[in-house]
Amino acid sequence: MELEALCSAAKAAKYEIAAISTEKKNEALLKIAELLVKESEAIIIANARDITTATTKGMSIPMIDRLRLTEDRIKAMSEGLRQVAELPDPLSDVLDEWELANGLKLKKVRVPLGVIGIIYESRPNVTADAFALTFKSGNVVILKGGSDAINSNTAITDVIRKGLKECGINENAISLIESTDRETTVKFMQMREYVDVLIPRGSAGLIRSVVENSKIPVIETGAGNCHIYIDKTADAAKAKCIVINAKTQRLGVCNTAESLLIHEDIAESIFPDIARALHDKSVEIRGDEEAQSSSEFVVPASEEDYGKEYLDLLISVKTVKNVEEAIAHINKYSTHHSDAIVTEDEESAEKFLKGVDSACVYVNASTRFTDGFEFGFGAEIGISTQMLHARGPMGLKELTSYKYQIRGNGQVRG
Amino acid sequence: MELEALCSAAKAAKYEIAAISTEKKNEALLKIAELLVKESEAIIIANARDITTATTKGMSIPMIDRLRLTEDRIKAMSEGLRQVAELPDPLSDVLDEWELANGLKLKKVRVPLGVIGIIYESRPNVTADAFALTFKSGNVVILKGGSDAINSNTAITDVIRKGLKECGINENAISLIESTDRETTVKFMQMREYVDVLIPRGSAGLIRSVVENSKIPVIETGAGNCHIYIDKTADAAKAKCIVINAKTQRLGVCNTAESLLIHEDIAESIFPDIARALHDKSVEIRGDEEAQSSSEFVVPASEEDYGKEYLDLLISVKTVKNVEEAIAHINKYSTHHSDAIVTEDEESAEKFLKGVDSACVYVNASTRFTDGFEFGFGAEIGISTQMLHARGPMGLKELTSYKYQIRGNGQVRG
Repeated sequence: MELEALCSAAKAAKYEIAAISTEKKNEALLKIAELLVKESEAIIIANARDITTATTKGMSIPMIDRLRLTEDRIKAMSEGLRQVAELPDPLSDVLDEWELANGLKLKKVRVPLGVIGIIYESRPNVTADAFALTFKSGNVVILKGGSDAINSNTAITDVIRKGLKECGINENAISLIESTDRETTVKFMQMREYVDVLIPRGSAGLIRSVVENSKIPVIETGAGNCHIYIDKTADAAKAKCIVINAKTQRLGVCNTAESLLIHEDIAESIFPDIARALHDKSVEIRGDEEAQSSSEFVVPASEEDYGKEYLDLLISVKTVKNVEEAIAHINKYSTHHSDAIVTEDEESAEKFLKGVDSACVYVNASTRFTDGFEFGFGAEIGISTQMLHARGPMGLKELTSYKYQIRGNGQVRG
Repeated sequence: MELEALCSAAKAAKYEIAAISTEKKNEALLKIAELLVKESEAIIIANARDITTATTKGMSIPMIDRLRLTEDRIKAMSEGLRQVAELPDPLSDVLDEWELANGLKLKKVRVPLGVIGIIYESRPNVTADAFALTFKSGNVVILKGGSDAINSNTAITDVIRKGLKECGINENAISLIESTDRETTVKFMQMREYVDVLIPRGSAGLIRSVVENSKIPVIETGAGNCHIYIDKTADAAKAKCIVINAKTQRLGVCNTAESLLIHEDIAESIFPDIARALHDKSVEIRGDEEAQSSSEFVVPASEEDYGKEYLDLLISVKTVKNVEEAIAHINKYSTHHSDAIVTEDEESAEKFLKGVDSACVYVNASTRFTDGFEFGFGAEIGISTQMLHARGPMGLKELTSYKYQIRGNGQVRG
């Protein structure tokens, strides 16, 4: 379908989708979960076409692996839908209720955002995930996936639309933009008349392009230059454990640590052992002069290193005089995602929690916990790194807005 | 000061301003309230220069009146600051607190948005109001006022900065952009590196320009094409009273009614009396054929009329078959601000409350209540008509974001 017609059809469905009962939405999610498994063969065949194209183009093995769908991965997608069906409906929440002196009764209730555009890159499982979350929160979704996964995304979307139809629900609750060229993407970002919110999920480059081109309000997600600051009073064992976990447990994700700040007093005591442990995990350590003189495993860092989200076996190290300098450094280079202090000093902990301007600020824990599932939200559409609307992990509630319902008996303003 | 330098100085002040105690902020607000009255002569002299220019340019009498500052108006500005000092500090709220199975303790706390840019038009009192609200909520503000009020705005800003200095607070908590040309305004909208949020206050044209040009996240405010729908079961007295109040109590504001929808069954009964009353208040009524045949005071409406925010002695009228048609009409033409139903039928009321996609939806009350003061927020920076972040009247809480503070004792992700 032509882009504007598709967006217009999505908008035309939005009030219908917003009004569907919780029971009906859950029924549809379970039906689609079932259909995905039942039709997994067709999905795998479509996916094989994407894999063939990717292989011909010379895509890297890890990227091809991200793209690949198997019976097990489709089962996991299906399980994801079942889990979302079990979550409470965010639209049932009454956020506030009060009465004015003039007798007006106000009720603040949740409502869906409307039509949500999601622009994402390789993984085809995002298609089902994004649908489940936006649908459960009463929204309509328009997906714009990457060209690498177009056949897989189309097959998954077809199954979802089929399931919706079988449940008597308007299929336009989900649409997939078929053209994957850049021009269409930019045109999509101008569809303000039809699309209420745009959520880009993917590389820093994609997010920059959306911020640059979009006329639709955007929720920025993803970029994470996360820091661990080891304070003067840090417990050595905790510090090592947290740094190794935050840097090496998973490399390519946004809550992974990219930079280590060390108090000058522990440069000679706690740091060398951590540097060795990082080295043992094949992490290249780029540090300032003090860090270099404290450990043979540290190579020189450039100013640029401190601003980088490596998503790789790399970490930067900077020595600081105190917690204030650590906070200032973080606020300067941060992407406002997740940062941690390791300390046994309550005053330093409190200063860090207050002073660091990030969505999630940790004391004595790994930054890897910044995640909707870990936080207990039961789901996650992404991690917001902006100030407006939502900050940090976004679950179902973060995909809603609100309105005021006001009841009177003839009140007028004097 | 050059625009970029000014924005950079504002950003440099933001963490300092965010950390000021409630007591200190209130002390500064009271000091500035006092100074404004003390220095009212200088402000009135500056204002007189603006009035002279406006008169020379041939500005209309009502517009000149909006621009004029008097001793009384300065006292009212000063009183506004005192009132904001008395409001609770939104930054003291803990929004949520919970513990995970792994022992991590999460706390969701309010934080300021950061640097807020406010672009506004004529009234110079906005300068003091906007400062009071952004400062109390821990934000830094950059103001871009209209050229008509530049001398008045500069004088008021100077007094505020003087007051801040006397309290030992960084004066860059407030800055005023001196150039008022369009080029500077557009350049300001690109200052994403320094400014966190942009709030335009003013005409639909201004808001469109901001939405079109801004690279900074925007909170749209203001445009209000508000509807009153008179249902089949409406009480005639309530209906008349609400329509007259919503349309005529104040013409030039966003919560004023601009369109009247009438159930076909009351076109001959309740409507004619309302039409006469509107006519008696000099309101021109533009309606469809049915409305025209029900009242001699109705002239033909064009399709365009239904989408207009008149802000004038004009109202459009449309006859509908039922509440569903009323809801569909409103959602098509609405600016998602405020809409009301007059009905004695609970089912119609409930359908209207759920179905109308506006920030504030009323049953049996005037749309004129959509206002931060009326809602009991104690203040108002504007009425948001967008879905993201805040909807409807925005008080101090709506000028904040949040962050998660997480305390552990060495937790890492498995």
